Amino acid sequence: MSNQDEAVNPGHWGPPYLLYLGKAADELAIKTARGLAYWRPAWCVGQHRHPDCRYTLGLTELGFAEAKAAGADTMVVGNANAGGVMAPETVTDIIAALDAGLNVTAGLHQKLRDNADIVAAAKRNGRTLFDAREFNRKIPVGDGHKRAGKRVLTVGTDCSVGKMYTTLALERGMRKRGLAADFRATGQTGIFVAGGGIPIDSVVADFISGAAEWLSPAREDGGWDLIEGQGSLFHPSYAGVSLGLLHGSQADALVLCHEAGRKHMRGLPDYPMPDLKQCLETNLAAARLTNPKVKAVGVALNTSNLGASEALAVCREISGRLDLPCLDPVSMGVEAIVDNLLACCAN
Amino acid sequence: MSNQDEAVNPGHWGPPYLLYLGKAADELAIKTARGLAYWRPAWCVGQHRHPDCRYTLGLTELGFAEAKAAGADTMVVGNANAGGVMAPETVTDIIAALDAGLNVTAGLHQKLRDNADIVAAAKRNGRTLFDAREFNRKIPVGDGHKRAGKRVLTVGTDCSVGKMYTTLALERGMRKRGLAADFRATGQTGIFVAGGGIPIDSVVADFISGAAEWLSPAREDGGWDLIEGQGSLFHPSYAGVSLGLLHGSQADALVLCHEAGRKHMRGLPDYPMPDLKQCLETNLAAARLTNPKVKAVGVALNTSNLGASEALAVCREISGRLDLPCLDPVSMGVEAIVDNLLACCAN
Repeated sequence: MSNQDEAVNPGHWGPPYLLYLGKAADELAIKTARGLAYWRPAWCVGQHRHPDCRYTLGLTELGFAEAKAAGADTMVVGNANAGGVMAPETVTDIIAALDAGLNVTAGLHQKLRDNADIVAAAKRNGRTLFDAREFNRKIPVGDGHKRAGKRVLTVGTDCSVGKMYTTLALERGMRKRGLAADFRATGQTGIFVAGGGIPIDSVVADFISGAAEWLSPAREDGGWDLIEGQGSLFHPSYAGVSLGLLHGSQADALVLCHEAGRKHMRGLPDYPMPDLKQCLETNLAAARLTNPKVKAVGVALNTSNLGASEALAVCREISGRLDLPCLDPVSMGVEAIVDNLLACCAN
Repeated sequence: MSNQDEAVNPGHWGPPYLLYLGKAADELAIKTARGLAYWRPAWCVGQHRHPDCRYTLGLTELGFAEAKAAGADTMVVGNANAGGVMAPETVTDIIAALDAGLNVTAGLHQKLRDNADIVAAAKRNGRTLFDAREFNRKIPVGDGHKRAGKRVLTVGTDCSVGKMYTTLALERGMRKRGLAADFRATGQTGIFVAGGGIPIDSVVADFISGAAEWLSPAREDGGWDLIEGQGSLFHPSYAGVSLGLLHGSQADALVLCHEAGRKHMRGLPDYPMPDLKQCLETNLAAARLTNPKVKAVGVALNTSNLGASEALAVCREISGRLDLPCLDPVSMGVEAIVDNLLACCAN
């Protein structure tokens, strides 16, 4: 058990989930819900859509009372609208869900508890509102003390290159082998998937590494904490978060995540992508401050823009250049990376 | 003019200052006040002490009404108590100062505006309360776009090695030469000295580099922004702040600050001090992301633990090893560093 279970439970919320899709206008609007349905299907009792919603996750369509009757505890509102703002009908639906006895969590920039009507509905029903982008709990600053346990951190050339997906794929792969391995969430979708975690880009700057230490505390059972990375040391907007996370994680192993063919850093046409080898070495050098034994164990490559044979060729080329297994976790799995992790960090 | 002037003016506050020493039990308790009296003597109309205070800044002793009559605008409450907590008599004094018509600023962990009696006194007198450790203003995330102007950033082997002092010494030295050079504050004492700034370790993690960009925006007058560094890339608690500040500053020049003879990283006996050369190279490598032309221009060494001849010898040794001017800004000034800065970054 990690502190992450406590971190995000100001009141109780958690699975089973009803996934709220609303009027989703594009795939991005249901990204969080899709992640939950994919990684935690057993937790998702159904979906709730507007009649004119053009997207579906293929789950049972449920009204709020039906969902409650089917065992749902919490309704999850993901990236429901562009800009993270709640549409009026979303507010109405959230209130209806609360009145039906569901707790509600959201990953929007606009906070549930900044809406007086939603707050009033939660109060009169004794329900929990949870904003996954917010973290108000007091935690200590990082202290860098060596702690027990084995930890993997995903690092990236950039934002949005598949760090959460890769970390969850590692969890699944390791659990299939009978290993104790637990995903530790640092972003909003990950927090819903894990049922806990810390939105690490939302903590006060002085506490970034402290948040990572707190999320994956000393572990004595021989199991692994698999920590979801954020940002990139090479992204000029967010590198501070990435470095604090790297230091606080005290990772034994890093997995480098990258998207094949990406032209420039996300949102910044002036900034070219870093060289993979330089990126990995910079991450390793920084990680050594808190864990001198840290090793790189693999590269997770998002090849969704490539054909199958080209994807294989690129993975082989990178694998040879970095002397590490390189796979697309979606199309090729992560077995070779898990093999290498276990070989490198057996003790 | 920098955004820093606006950043910390939710209401008006600023010099002339009355420096509040209270019952200061040690030198640390008056550190902020001493910094102000040293760097901005013309702004300090007097000091206010309890009868049993054993420390003094040698300023005129003033009651609150006397200070107001003498032209004081704002009373500054620095590190008045261990742990940053206000003693009951401090609360009483703050209320008396507000009733005498002074604004009040504090750099305590405990916020002025979390005390209902203080808030009530400010309201009934129409006075401003300003907590220098707090920053609630909305700013954009960093974008890394190249901006006009020349900037210097102080970086350190550790926390508390003299970055603020060095930055202010550079300002003084450059202004003496008739150069336009402005200190940009990132910590509480610096904010009082500058009359503005951003407490960069208190911003939300995603906004560290954005805060640095906002603090030292594009500058077209040929002058210099001298940015106060924070923490160290080698401090496992705070390196995220240091990296975001490094990226957001887009510094043209770095000055490395260090304390001679320090045994280990501040507060962390397990962590040895970094090698000076490695520390400087790591900072330069990271800084190149947003300014590929960045150069190291000097080393500022705190030699207060050494005798004069030993201090000179250590400076010479470091200067030779790093091929940079190395001086103690307190005992030797910063002239050689300013010379090198101007030679390296003339255009």
